[in-house]
Amino acid sequence: MADRPSLHVLGLGLIGGSLLRAAAATHDVSGWSPSADTRDAAAADGFRVVADPETLLEEADAADGLVVLAAPVTAFGDLLRRVDAVAPEVRLTDVGSVKAAVEDQVEALAPTARFIGSHPMAGTQHSGWAAGSADLFTGAAWVTTLTEESDLDTWMYVADLALGLQCRVVPTEAPAHDSAVALVSHLPHLLALALAQVGADGGPLALSLAAGSFGDGTRVAATRPELIRAMCETNKKALVPAVDAFLGVLGVGRGSLASTGSLVKLTEAGHAGRMQFEQRGGGLELLTLSGDDLIEQLLSVGASGGHVTAVRREGDDGPEVDAYYPAYDDD
Amino acid sequence: MADRPSLHVLGLGLIGGSLLRAAAATHDVSGWSPSADTRDAAAADGFRVVADPETLLEEADAADGLVVLAAPVTAFGDLLRRVDAVAPEVRLTDVGSVKAAVEDQVEALAPTARFIGSHPMAGTQHSGWAAGSADLFTGAAWVTTLTEESDLDTWMYVADLALGLQCRVVPTEAPAHDSAVALVSHLPHLLALALAQVGADGGPLALSLAAGSFGDGTRVAATRPELIRAMCETNKKALVPAVDAFLGVLGVGRGSLASTGSLVKLTEAGHAGRMQFEQRGGGLELLTLSGDDLIEQLLSVGASGGHVTAVRREGDDGPEVDAYYPAYDDD
Repeated sequence: MADRPSLHVLGLGLIGGSLLRAAAATHDVSGWSPSADTRDAAAADGFRVVADPETLLEEADAADGLVVLAAPVTAFGDLLRRVDAVAPEVRLTDVGSVKAAVEDQVEALAPTARFIGSHPMAGTQHSGWAAGSADLFTGAAWVTTLTEESDLDTWMYVADLALGLQCRVVPTEAPAHDSAVALVSHLPHLLALALAQVGADGGPLALSLAAGSFGDGTRVAATRPELIRAMCETNKKALVPAVDAFLGVLGVGRGSLASTGSLVKLTEAGHAGRMQFEQRGGGLELLTLSGDDLIEQLLSVGASGGHVTAVRREGDDGPEVDAYYPAYDDD
Repeated sequence: MADRPSLHVLGLGLIGGSLLRAAAATHDVSGWSPSADTRDAAAADGFRVVADPETLLEEADAADGLVVLAAPVTAFGDLLRRVDAVAPEVRLTDVGSVKAAVEDQVEALAPTARFIGSHPMAGTQHSGWAAGSADLFTGAAWVTTLTEESDLDTWMYVADLALGLQCRVVPTEAPAHDSAVALVSHLPHLLALALAQVGADGGPLALSLAAGSFGDGTRVAATRPELIRAMCETNKKALVPAVDAFLGVLGVGRGSLASTGSLVKLTEAGHAGRMQFEQRGGGLELLTLSGDDLIEQLLSVGASGGHVTAVRREGDDGPEVDAYYPAYDDD
C-alpha cells in the first residue's frame, strides 16, 4: 500500500460506493456524497467520509492521490469547477459511460488537472450506496482514455487501481471508446426495444409463438427505461451513426430479400461477424512495452483488441507495461 | 391406439424421423424416404418402411389414416401430384415452416385432399434421420392452420397427434401464422445477423468491449447460414413487411434521438412490449368449445394467444375442444 496513491471518491452511488469498498483492501480511501444519509451509511460501514468536496480535494492534493468523479455526469460541471479552484493540478479520473464529452468538459473547466478518463464496464440494475459491492468490477473491462498529451504517470495510477480490482485494462482514445460502446452496447439496447415493440404490436398470436430468438433478442428491453435513456441519450453523437450503420446493413438485406429473394450476403456476413465475436481474444500474445512512444503503443493495444495486464512505474527501462497484443503471422 | 388413425410419413429427416419415433408409441406408423440409405436406417431401427410414395398413399387411403408431408418444401409439388393421382381425398398435413404458400400449393395440386397445415415449432441445428428423437416436440407449440372450409374431423386427427406429443396446439389461419413467425422468429434472426456484421465492422476494440447485450442480440447469428436462409427466404412475403415495421420503429427512435435527443417513446414502448412477452399466457382460463361455429371459435383461440389442450371427436355435444382462452374482466 505504501507506494500506492490514496483514493478520493466524489459520489458514493453504485459505482463510487463499490469502488470505495473494492479499493479499501489496497489503498487509503475516502469519499464524499452530497447526501448526508449516504455519508452516514458509508461512515457506519467503516469508511472515511468527508463533509464537503473541498476537503476531499485538499487532502488529495496534499497526498498526490487520485480523485475519482463518480457522480452522475450532470454534476460533473460543478465538481470540475471546484477541482479547478481547489486543486487545479490534481490527479483525476471519472467513471462515466461516455468519454469524449467528459474529456471536453475537463479541458474547458479544469484544464490543468492530470486527467485520465475511465469507464469500468460493470453495473447492475440497482443504484445507491447500499447496492454497491467490493466485487462489482471483477473480470470486467476497465476502459482508460488518453491522448498523446495525457499524463502517463496518472494513467499508470489508474491502470494499477483497475488491475488491482481484477479488471482487463483497455487503453483507447475517448471518441473510439464512444463509438465502440455505441455499436456493441447502446445499439443492441435500441434493437431489443424496437423488436419488443414490433413483436407486441403483432398481437397475442405472435407473442404466443415467440421462443428463443425473440427472447434473446429482446432480453435487455427488460432494463429500466430510464437507465437505457441515461446510457444512450448521453452518447447520442456516436449512437446516431451506429444506428445508421445498422439501418444500412438491414436495409440492404431487406432490399435483396424483396428484389432477388436472397439473403446470402446478410447471412454470410452476419455469421462471420458472430464467429469473430466468439473467437475474439484468441491469438493474443503477451508483450512488454516501454519507451518514449509508450502512449502510442498503449493506444495501439486497445485499438487492436488487446488489454494491459501489468504496469511498472519504475521498470528497468523506465515505465513498463505488460499487454496482450494480437500475434501476427510472418507471412 | 384402436381409435387413433394410422400415420404415414413422407420424408424421414429431422422432423419426419422424429415424428415417426414419437408417434410410434400411440399410432400405427410407417414411412418413406427417397433415400435408400435412410429407408434402411429407419427399418434397422424397427420402423415399417415402404419402398415408394404410392404404396404409402394407398395404405393411408385404405386405412383412412393421416399422411404427413415431411419432405423439404421444394419436393411438395411432386408429392402433391402423387397424392392427387393415388389418394385424392386422403387426410393430409405437412410440417413446413411457412403455411400460406403450402395451402395455395395444395389447393392447386391436390384440391380434394382433406388438408390441415401444421408447423411444429421444434428443431435443432442438425438434420437427417440419425438426428431425430422421440422427444423433439415435447413442450413445443404445434401450429395448425385451417379455414372455415377445412375438414374439422381431420383437424381433430392432427390436434390429437400433436397433443399426444405434449405440444400446445395453436389453431390459426395460414397467413396469420406466416406474419407471426416472421415477426418473432425470422425478423430476430435478421437483426442478429445485421448486428453481428455491424459489430464486427466496428473492429477489434468494439468486439473486445462487447458483453451481455451484444452476446444476447447476436446469439442466433451463430446458426448455419443455409438454415436461416431456408427459413427466411421462403417466408419473404410476410418477412418483408415485418422488416419494414421494424425499420419504421427504429427509424422513428433514431429521428427522435437525433433531433430532440430523447428516446422516451422507444424505451417506454419497448419495455412495455417485453413485459407483455414475459407475461403472455397469464390470465388464460380453460373453456370447452363446441357447436356449428367450432372452426371460428378455434381461430379465435389462436388469435387471442390461447391454445388447445384436448379434443373429443364424439363428445356429448358433437365434437368438443378444451382450450385455454384469455379471461376478460366484466368491466
